[in-house]
Amino acid sequence: MISKKLPQIFYGGDYSPEQWPESVWLDDMRLMKQAGVNLVSVGIFSWALLQPNEDTFDFQWFDKLLDLLAEHGIYVDLATATAAQPAWLSKKYPDVLPVDEKGIRFSYGSRQSYCPNSPSYRRLSRELVRRLAERYRNHPALALWHINNEYACHTSSCYCDTCAEAFRVWLQNKYGSVAEVNEAWGTNFWSQYYYHWDEIIPPRYTSTFSNPSQVLDYQRFMSDSIFELYQGEYDIIKSVTPDILITTNFMVDFKPLDYFKWAKQIDVISWDSYPNPEPDYDLAITAFNHDLMRSLKGGQPFFLMEQASSQINWRPYNTNKRPGVMNLWSKAAVARGADGVMFFQWRQSVKGAEKFHSAMVPHAGENSRVYQEIAQLGKELTKLSEIIDTRIKAETAIIFDYENWWAVEYQQHPSQSLNYLDQLRNFYKPLFELNIPTDIVPVDCDLSHYQLVIAPLLYMIKPGVKENLEKYVAAGGTLIVSFFSGIVDETDGVFGEGYPGPLKELLGISVEEFDALEPHMANKVRLVRELGDLKGQYNCSLWGEMVKTDTAAALALFGEDYYGGAPCLTENQYRQGKAYYLATQPEPEFYRDFLRYLCRTNHISPTLVAPTGVEVTKRKGKEAEYLFILNHNPDPVTVNISGKYRDLIGDQEYERSVSLDSKASLVLKRGNI
Amino acid sequence: MISKKLPQIFYGGDYSPEQWPESVWLDDMRLMKQAGVNLVSVGIFSWALLQPNEDTFDFQWFDKLLDLLAEHGIYVDLATATAAQPAWLSKKYPDVLPVDEKGIRFSYGSRQSYCPNSPSYRRLSRELVRRLAERYRNHPALALWHINNEYACHTSSCYCDTCAEAFRVWLQNKYGSVAEVNEAWGTNFWSQYYYHWDEIIPPRYTSTFSNPSQVLDYQRFMSDSIFELYQGEYDIIKSVTPDILITTNFMVDFKPLDYFKWAKQIDVISWDSYPNPEPDYDLAITAFNHDLMRSLKGGQPFFLMEQASSQINWRPYNTNKRPGVMNLWSKAAVARGADGVMFFQWRQSVKGAEKFHSAMVPHAGENSRVYQEIAQLGKELTKLSEIIDTRIKAETAIIFDYENWWAVEYQQHPSQSLNYLDQLRNFYKPLFELNIPTDIVPVDCDLSHYQLVIAPLLYMIKPGVKENLEKYVAAGGTLIVSFFSGIVDETDGVFGEGYPGPLKELLGISVEEFDALEPHMANKVRLVRELGDLKGQYNCSLWGEMVKTDTAAALALFGEDYYGGAPCLTENQYRQGKAYYLATQPEPEFYRDFLRYLCRTNHISPTLVAPTGVEVTKRKGKEAEYLFILNHNPDPVTVNISGKYRDLIGDQEYERSVSLDSKASLVLKRGNI
Amino acid sequence: MISKKLPQIFYGGDYSPEQWPESVWLDDMRLMKQAGVNLVSVGIFSWALLQPNEDTFDFQWFDKLLDLLAEHGIYVDLATATAAQPAWLSKKYPDVLPVDEKGIRFSYGSRQSYCPNSPSYRRLSRELVRRLAERYRNHPALALWHINNEYACHTSSCYCDTCAEAFRVWLQNKYGSVAEVNEAWGTNFWSQYYYHWDEIIPPRYTSTFSNPSQVLDYQRFMSDSIFELYQGEYDIIKSVTPDILITTNFMVDFKPLDYFKWAKQIDVISWDSYPNPEPDYDLAITAFNHDLMRSLKGGQPFFLMEQASSQINWRPYNTNKRPGVMNLWSKAAVARGADGVMFFQWRQSVKGAEKFHSAMVPHAGENSRVYQEIAQLGKELTKLSEIIDTRIKAETAIIFDYENWWAVEYQQHPSQSLNYLDQLRNFYKPLFELNIPTDIVPVDCDLSHYQLVIAPLLYMIKPGVKENLEKYVAAGGTLIVSFFSGIVDETDGVFGEGYPGPLKELLGISVEEFDALEPHMANKVRLVRELGDLKGQYNCSLWGEMVKTDTAAALALFGEDYYGGAPCLTENQYRQGKAYYLATQPEPEFYRDFLRYLCRTNHISPTLVAPTGVEVTKRKGKEAEYLFILNHNPDPVTVNISGKYRDLIGDQEYERSVSLDSKASLVLKRGNI
Repeated sequence: MISKKLPQIFYGGDYSPEQWPESVWLDDMRLMKQAGVNLVSVGIFSWALLQPNEDTFDFQWFDKLLDLLAEHGIYVDLATATAAQPAWLSKKYPDVLPVDEKGIRFSYGSRQSYCPNSPSYRRLSRELVRRLAERYRNHPALALWHINNEYACHTSSCYCDTCAEAFRVWLQNKYGSVAEVNEAWGTNFWSQYYYHWDEIIPPRYTSTFSNPSQVLDYQRFMSDSIFELYQGEYDIIKSVTPDILITTNFMVDFKPLDYFKWAKQIDVISWDSYPNPEPDYDLAITAFNHDLMRSLKGGQPFFLMEQASSQINWRPYNTNKRPGVMNLWSKAAVARGADGVMFFQWRQSVKGAEKFHSAMVPHAGENSRVYQEIAQLGKELTKLSEIIDTRIKAETAIIFDYENWWAVEYQQHPSQSLNYLDQLRNFYKPLFELNIPTDIVPVDCDLSHYQLVIAPLLYMIKPGVKENLEKYVAAGGTLIVSFFSGIVDETDGVFGEGYPGPLKELLGISVEEFDALEPHMANKVRLVRELGDLKGQYNCSLWGEMVKTDTAAALALFGEDYYGGAPCLTENQYRQGKAYYLATQPEPEFYRDFLRYLCRTNHISPTLVAPTGVEVTKRKGKEAEYLFILNHNPDPVTVNISGKYRDLIGDQEYERSVSLDSKASLVLKRGNI
Repeated sequence: MISKKLPQIFYGGDYSPEQWPESVWLDDMRLMKQAGVNLVSVGIFSWALLQPNEDTFDFQWFDKLLDLLAEHGIYVDLATATAAQPAWLSKKYPDVLPVDEKGIRFSYGSRQSYCPNSPSYRRLSRELVRRLAERYRNHPALALWHINNEYACHTSSCYCDTCAEAFRVWLQNKYGSVAEVNEAWGTNFWSQYYYHWDEIIPPRYTSTFSNPSQVLDYQRFMSDSIFELYQGEYDIIKSVTPDILITTNFMVDFKPLDYFKWAKQIDVISWDSYPNPEPDYDLAITAFNHDLMRSLKGGQPFFLMEQASSQINWRPYNTNKRPGVMNLWSKAAVARGADGVMFFQWRQSVKGAEKFHSAMVPHAGENSRVYQEIAQLGKELTKLSEIIDTRIKAETAIIFDYENWWAVEYQQHPSQSLNYLDQLRNFYKPLFELNIPTDIVPVDCDLSHYQLVIAPLLYMIKPGVKENLEKYVAAGGTLIVSFFSGIVDETDGVFGEGYPGPLKELLGISVEEFDALEPHMANKVRLVRELGDLKGQYNCSLWGEMVKTDTAAALALFGEDYYGGAPCLTENQYRQGKAYYLATQPEPEFYRDFLRYLCRTNHISPTLVAPTGVEVTKRKGKEAEYLFILNHNPDPVTVNISGKYRDLIGDQEYERSVSLDSKASLVLKRGNI
Repeated sequence: MISKKLPQIFYGGDYSPEQWPESVWLDDMRLMKQAGVNLVSVGIFSWALLQPNEDTFDFQWFDKLLDLLAEHGIYVDLATATAAQPAWLSKKYPDVLPVDEKGIRFSYGSRQSYCPNSPSYRRLSRELVRRLAERYRNHPALALWHINNEYACHTSSCYCDTCAEAFRVWLQNKYGSVAEVNEAWGTNFWSQYYYHWDEIIPPRYTSTFSNPSQVLDYQRFMSDSIFELYQGEYDIIKSVTPDILITTNFMVDFKPLDYFKWAKQIDVISWDSYPNPEPDYDLAITAFNHDLMRSLKGGQPFFLMEQASSQINWRPYNTNKRPGVMNLWSKAAVARGADGVMFFQWRQSVKGAEKFHSAMVPHAGENSRVYQEIAQLGKELTKLSEIIDTRIKAETAIIFDYENWWAVEYQQHPSQSLNYLDQLRNFYKPLFELNIPTDIVPVDCDLSHYQLVIAPLLYMIKPGVKENLEKYVAAGGTLIVSFFSGIVDETDGVFGEGYPGPLKELLGISVEEFDALEPHMANKVRLVRELGDLKGQYNCSLWGEMVKTDTAAALALFGEDYYGGAPCLTENQYRQGKAYYLATQPEPEFYRDFLRYLCRTNHISPTLVAPTGVEVTKRKGKEAEYLFILNHNPDPVTVNISGKYRDLIGDQEYERSVSLDSKASLVLKRGNI
């Protein structure tokens, strides 16, 4: 349970009352209570008001605010206020401002712009956090800590001299000697050899491509540098309030930070979800991120820290969420493991860069569609308290590795369309559409409890990965690996033994060459024999390879070009399990049929067989299980269920089938009904 | 009359004889006389030659030039030569060079590149102007002063430290205290609060969006800073030659400067017109700018300072003006209120960045189509002297507000396609095509003499605007306001009372939410009942709103989506007048039909009912009125007229109808024929 | 003969053994011998290893390498290692790093990034070259010197203060006085006049267009500055090893350097060819560059220094060369005059930015398609030794002038689609497809041995050019000049006498105005009478002109627009020869038919009449001639030949006709068979 003080689904949003006179605060309390709000995030951008200058702090208005919230029974997700330093600080200590790769220092006047290695930022932010923690350690409103905000959102890399020096220290810790750095980076290429530590600098503005191993290490270093900011705040807070959980809010499809590495030091995961509005919305993208967030701490509940009640303001076109959509998407988060649904923000700003970003209370006030929907959702969520801390069980997992992501998308790779997330989604999307629960797991995860594991585009094989995958398959697991895998080690150095490097034995193949197809080029996947749904031929594009089977059997062959007739999909029996290799990117039907085939042969069942556009998940508690049925379609649907269920919100009982209007959802309880 | 010395239509161009040996000057005189040239602009880019160094001026060659012109009866529009400072000056005082938002200082070697707040630029440019004014105060050729050139053309914002300091002074004058700045800019958002003046800087290079109120004030400050340059030169000249009128040349659709604010301190308006060549040419864009220039000083004649005789050189493709086009477009300027038609430039350069920009005398010399057309036009214009100082009377006005333009196009707004000029043109274009004279007026204009006033996209309602519009309608006026109006005050702060803020009572509606449509989205405007031409249904796109009528009546409803059936076009009887609100952007036919309906009900008649593509305007003098008929079509047309007219150029009389060839035009005099 | 030591077709590649442990070196020797490699380029990026610091050199590993190669009978193309300075050097002497036009200094960490005028770079690079030359002057492996690498590839312009100072010196040498610079650059335009040398700076970051004459001189200065680097190394090497030839590798369609000017100081021409992969590959582009390289030193054999065995890594998509393509394209180089076929690189890197660039030995090793094809080609080339030093005879020439290229593509020209290479290719491509040998010659070339000379888009007429062309035609030559020619002199100043300036008499026409058509615009070329294949009408676009014939006759007229009926193609009898002028860009069929007509009337025959897609060339030796027949088609073809030939590779005899598979080629010997 995230907060013992608040054993309910979190409901609320970012709250910035400093943008309004105090007269509005009381009205806020009234509207919050009316809407069922139980938690608000305060202080995220309050540093400038909390600390007028280096020697002065002003907590009085903040005391008043927290007291008022406590008085009204609303809990606080207390932000550390370090997300945006005040103007006076940037002016006094210019080293806090980051520097771009051309050496140009950013100016202040926006938000979240600081060098992660700035000593001034580190010292002053930690001093603020210490004071906040000590002042509010026993405040009755305090339910959760919220460190910083959307780390690395605008500034994920700094190239200043402070960072250069910190990079050298980081390298010394990692490699020990300059000789080891030269070895790891392959600096005999292009006359890049370093003789002294102080010759090593960040990958700044250069005439052409930087060294890819250096770039990769800089990405690692930046993720680690920013993590140190987090860890610094965490340690201070933990030492003062050891019993209050701590979160920091993550983002969608976010590349700069290794969230798996971070998650180990985070008490509870939260994230901000701003999907594209309909009709461009791709359900699977959000679902993938929900599943990732749930998986970051092994299935432990997470929560939505931010979403929009209606339109946002930073896309080229910002349409409104249509009636019912906000409710449905909120439920979809809970359905995949969220124990809280919150918004940016409580009351819509009237000034500043986000004044046209929607809020729980829009400019039009309480007599508005948006607020009415917010209040309705709040009412509904109070009926879901019993699902807190229930879990989702997945037998399928997709491996997701941030360092692999960084390395495989380095600019000078064979194809600019080689996008790691695309390759993950090629497999994720059919699983999502089939309502087969899937975890998104790190490459060093214990895989033993999964029936099917998919490792798309696993370009980089770090130490231990080969062993982990072999162990999993040897024990009877089923593994899929897709093209351009097993190419480099953790330094981005190509394996000497030929592709797919250390995976050769497990996959039972070798790859002589790969072929990055231009957009107008295509090939065919021709099945050698029918494998259930997987049969006949499929179009493929993007990539081809010349595969030679060793112990593996060819299940499908390329249909055309000079490697026509060579294997395209292979199966290798490896001890008790099977390892598949897919050497191209086929059309979506292939992925669907291939996964259906493998799910069937591995006895993996969907949560429920439901019509297209109906998302179904199951959360299991100790005494009951809860079926979420969400109709994303523009039309009503009927869904067959088996067994007796009670609708937690509507308090109605169902058997055999349920009917849902467009955008409607049900949370059905089975068990101790 | 612009110049008593020269009671004719101005005809000539920029003249830069310093680019040729003096032997060419005499030939210039001959060709000018032959072409009917009576005025040339000299000295625009002569600073480097007029002042070899800080202590030395060289006016001898300039004396000779002016004497030669006077001798040949050609008047001078005397430029102050401050448009481009010499290389020696930029080198000696680097602070004159502007700095971009990343802090990079521009280099010299081009033109018109100076920091508007540079003390060196201000001191040295004014010294030059003083000397020019004193030297040529009594020169017989002097007819007009031409301050600088196309202010802000290339450098409309500077971000240097001088500007930062000047910005703080500007803010002190405007707001008095830092607290007031914080209040105006809403700096409690994103921790942007300022404690001291010296913390405030321009909106420089930042990690994400700047504060929109700060950006808006910086746009105002820059317009004002550049205006101070103008005012500084103006005051010097006026003190020396109080009787010679002063101009500075404006530009098309030009956003950085508040031309209404500037116009108050300009004696005579002039502008530079470089429309896209045919066939992409949109007649209405140029006509709109002519009407704006005429309106800037309440109908007082303006003149074309620059246009091209044929091709220009800075578009991706620079086609020639076809035969007759230059003549027609010149007449179109006079038709809308211009008392002068001039060119950039007299003789085509043979070196420099504009050597492929056409001129009155092209590279091919006098035996050329271009020069022949120039000479022909000169001959014709001498026959139009009597139209000087006649006026155009409009009963229709469109409100145009520069600050609204700046604010509504701030980057983080609901839709990137929300373009202020587009919304003005939606209404202007059908009025233009119907040959209904229209003024373009500022938001604080006395509107009482208009029958119909249109305020498209009036996002910002500054103090006094509500009262001005209410007064106008109350007295019987008809007002149209279009969507996303009444949103913010002059600080760009959203009105607390909901949209459309202070216009709620006048319009008799409230707007609960707006919806920025993506390009693929659309809706319908469905008329509740037939209103003359306005009937049935129209497509609409870009924008939708949820409008609630209070005292207003719904004339049309949205046809689709979740606000289908809600009002889309409303009419509110406000005392003696009517106020309309349009909540979307319909297709062009709607604007045409809606304006036809309102013109009919308000007894506003076209100047003449003419075939498509025939522009007709009327200029009225004390004793006569002059009908301009211009055939923009590729084919001949016949136009019906009523009454007797004499063609000023062809000296022929017409009754009932006139026939015009393609690209032909007539200036018909009625009255004391 | 390029190297007396090595009287064979060069075959090999860049060799960077420092990227591997020495254990791999012996395997390299084995595979090289197996593949027929006889020459490798070593040391290109070895500076960092050869010189650990300013005072220390380490040649031991390099000695060992060269000894090993000599031992295995493999010769060395010895690079001067100056292409990329070490990190220690960039750090110690920051002036070696170039500065961009905004004043931002590049960082190191990539490659080939140095200011061409840096005194530190010049001093240290020359010291290294001197030591290399002295150490290896008598090494048995040394066959050729390879100065630097792909000069100007990434950094073709530097804008630092060192360059500014050097530019002033360059200008002083060229012009003598500031007054002459002002005159040449036309600085009375835009107030750009200079009073002192130190006011003159490079064309840096400015508010709008720079002075085009200044930009042109800066391009000349940069080409010359970089040439000084080359010359500096050349002189040192020549003084030590006067008998070893020297090369530096050129690039495709490379604009920054005036290769004709450079070629005079280069002993043997080499270049790097990376054509787009099939199917986008345009045979004519590569062929044009081969012909240019052959022509740079008047027909003397050149060689391919670099090409890829299969895919490269810096395009958006990098497909493989299909089987046979690498072989065919290698032969195509020899067919047009190359005496060597080399690759980047020998062994594929496993680290660094080019690890996915293919090599002779790919990651998969010797058991691979790629290596097998390499070994096969090596075997074949050994059979072609007798063609070394044979020549190609062309009766047709296209004039190509780098300064004209720089000037005509200055940004502010009439049309952004005015591309010099496009205009050259309009003529080159049909000649290539007709298998008519063509030289690419400089504008001051002795043209007397050509039957047909084409000068497309000869915008700039430098001193002597008029005389050279007139002399050629007067003596009976046939010349084609295309539109927008004869416009400016060598300073980019428009000729005073009208277009086409000094070519008026030769062409017998004058051009009153030109018209840069927008992409949607078009016109027609209407032949006045049938000229063999050239008849009827053709579409044209891009450009139109109003041409007046003086002594010329109109062969075709424009079909439309206001210059419809005016001449479009003219023919002028000038003494014994004929000069044609083409005033627009017609469709490809026009160029084909026009050139067929002129070849026929000038008795110019194809090397062989062959099916489409079959390239045929002829190299002539003292005793024999060699016919190259290359089938670029996807299908087999049969080609008719006349006479008896022997296939040098297959050792088979042919008479009457030969059949070739797709991608197959033959080298047929005639003569002393």
